[in-house]
Amino acid sequence: MNKTSSLSSLGEFGLIDRIRSRFSQPVAPELGIGDDAALLSPAPGCQVLVSTDLLAEGVHFDLGFGPARLLGCKSLAVNLSDIASMGAIPRWFFLSLAIPAGFPLETIEGLLDGLAEQAVAHTCILAGGDTCSSKSGLVISVTIMGEQRPELVLKRSGAQPGDEVWVSGTLGDSALGLKLLTEGKRLGGDDDYLLQRHLDPTPRCHLGLKLAESGLVHAMIDISDGLLADLGHIAEQSGCGAEIQLAQLPLSAQFQVYAAAQPFMPWQLAICGGEDYELCFTAPAANHQTILQLAKTAGIPVTVVGKVTDSKQVQALLPDGTLFKPEAKGFTHF
Amino acid sequence: MNKTSSLSSLGEFGLIDRIRSRFSQPVAPELGIGDDAALLSPAPGCQVLVSTDLLAEGVHFDLGFGPARLLGCKSLAVNLSDIASMGAIPRWFFLSLAIPAGFPLETIEGLLDGLAEQAVAHTCILAGGDTCSSKSGLVISVTIMGEQRPELVLKRSGAQPGDEVWVSGTLGDSALGLKLLTEGKRLGGDDDYLLQRHLDPTPRCHLGLKLAESGLVHAMIDISDGLLADLGHIAEQSGCGAEIQLAQLPLSAQFQVYAAAQPFMPWQLAICGGEDYELCFTAPAANHQTILQLAKTAGIPVTVVGKVTDSKQVQALLPDGTLFKPEAKGFTHF
Repeated sequence: MNKTSSLSSLGEFGLIDRIRSRFSQPVAPELGIGDDAALLSPAPGCQVLVSTDLLAEGVHFDLGFGPARLLGCKSLAVNLSDIASMGAIPRWFFLSLAIPAGFPLETIEGLLDGLAEQAVAHTCILAGGDTCSSKSGLVISVTIMGEQRPELVLKRSGAQPGDEVWVSGTLGDSALGLKLLTEGKRLGGDDDYLLQRHLDPTPRCHLGLKLAESGLVHAMIDISDGLLADLGHIAEQSGCGAEIQLAQLPLSAQFQVYAAAQPFMPWQLAICGGEDYELCFTAPAANHQTILQLAKTAGIPVTVVGKVTDSKQVQALLPDGTLFKPEAKGFTHF
Repeated sequence: MNKTSSLSSLGEFGLIDRIRSRFSQPVAPELGIGDDAALLSPAPGCQVLVSTDLLAEGVHFDLGFGPARLLGCKSLAVNLSDIASMGAIPRWFFLSLAIPAGFPLETIEGLLDGLAEQAVAHTCILAGGDTCSSKSGLVISVTIMGEQRPELVLKRSGAQPGDEVWVSGTLGDSALGLKLLTEGKRLGGDDDYLLQRHLDPTPRCHLGLKLAESGLVHAMIDISDGLLADLGHIAEQSGCGAEIQLAQLPLSAQFQVYAAAQPFMPWQLAICGGEDYELCFTAPAANHQTILQLAKTAGIPVTVVGKVTDSKQVQALLPDGTLFKPEAKGFTHF
């Protein structure tokens, strides 16, 4: 491919053909790309779960921060994470792209590479979409659909006072990675782990599904706005409160090295930074050991970071027992 | 409401609450706005049909051309049209908005008014979405889901040589309306019919559903890129060709008045202009009278404009029998 070629050499239908050819469909939907609508059937006894995320250049991503391939991976990952947090199985996705005139074709190719890679990794089929030009930046809109038996779906609304609050993986890496990217750090140096955590998050699909099937969990959400805000959504929907013990937060070695060089622990990044794409879930304390065992089998560490309370407040306590006062509860647009 | 208020006074979650409150849901999905994903069930025996359209400011719409309410109506209409063209029943939609900083709240309110109006008119439920800021223009991404029994779904691929080619309504009004808008015409003058046809298209949901249920039709598509291009999609998917008789095209009185003032008939607008959102379908000639009767009952005029051939070409013939040579087959991005 000519490195200098731009999208205009391909045209709209050329681009659609290119997209179609990039996704080898393991199981084709009844009727996919190439008609007015895709035709899909959930498995018998299953309901359809749908989520959508829109990523805009200059708002959600900066093409200078990393390869387009990782942006493709992430565009699907953030949607997969929503399906994971419901305990469902990802099945189909729809991709809409608004692309600026003269946009380099190789960036689009990279984006499609990443999307295709992530789609194969999670057996999620591209079933349709839309392409158009954009007056300014690149806009990526993904709608994902999954399926699950309704009795297994994990909602935000099931938390009960006394439940333990769990999180998967480690928190704050992505927010710290973004901070470093903003400061000019790029992949290929000492900070790759943290940068990768921001540029290429791993949706916890397998763990989410296992937790749903186990029946051990009351409520679940994925952490996209920061633990404090997202646990707040669980609390609000469940009509209860929650208390986070900051001393119990799972932090990566890389995050801790950074934190050690600061005058104080960067709790703000860890629970308000967002884009962790880890799971937060609540479960009765009696299920503690079984959950640890299940997560071990799934290969993802999980940690209790607090408990559900019967207050209406969600708060975080510093290691000395005093109340943590966040600068802002989480990322908010506008 | 303060006329000068902007979105920043509301915040992201305020906006989501505002959106939620604007849509009175006639039948709530099992789990809609307020969790990580919506949970939906097609009716027994039905499959799910999904389509998505992304509208970008400066590409698909100009906020100066008409009220935001009509833009809201149209954003859902173009998606409803995709469901109509499959002969399916619209059920749920997902709305993603990328909104520039400082965008006037009243424009968003107008947009939501139109979306809600259209949603009520077609009993289509807002089941989720995403909101974020945009670096530049407004971006509206809608994903729509409908349902239908698989044996009734009308695809692009069923056309057979000898079929009559039908279209609903009249063609070219929308393209002419856009031309007039571009020339500076606005609503409130003599050209309202044509401007409305561009700004506020009517998706042919009822007619599409009746045609699907009738079993009279072989293939169907909605005309978004212009009859010549969209009939081309039917021909391509069906492995055949088609011939359009331009003398038979249904043209509105308003379009004809305009055409009479031109040195030649503006066929280009009528079959290549696009955004008609009328239905194009093919059916055996033996079904001609029954189709006319069905369309009369549905209240939408339908007209035969040509036939399906066993060639591989789609062409249009001028009233004198010579071949029409389009300037471009239809709108294409990039």
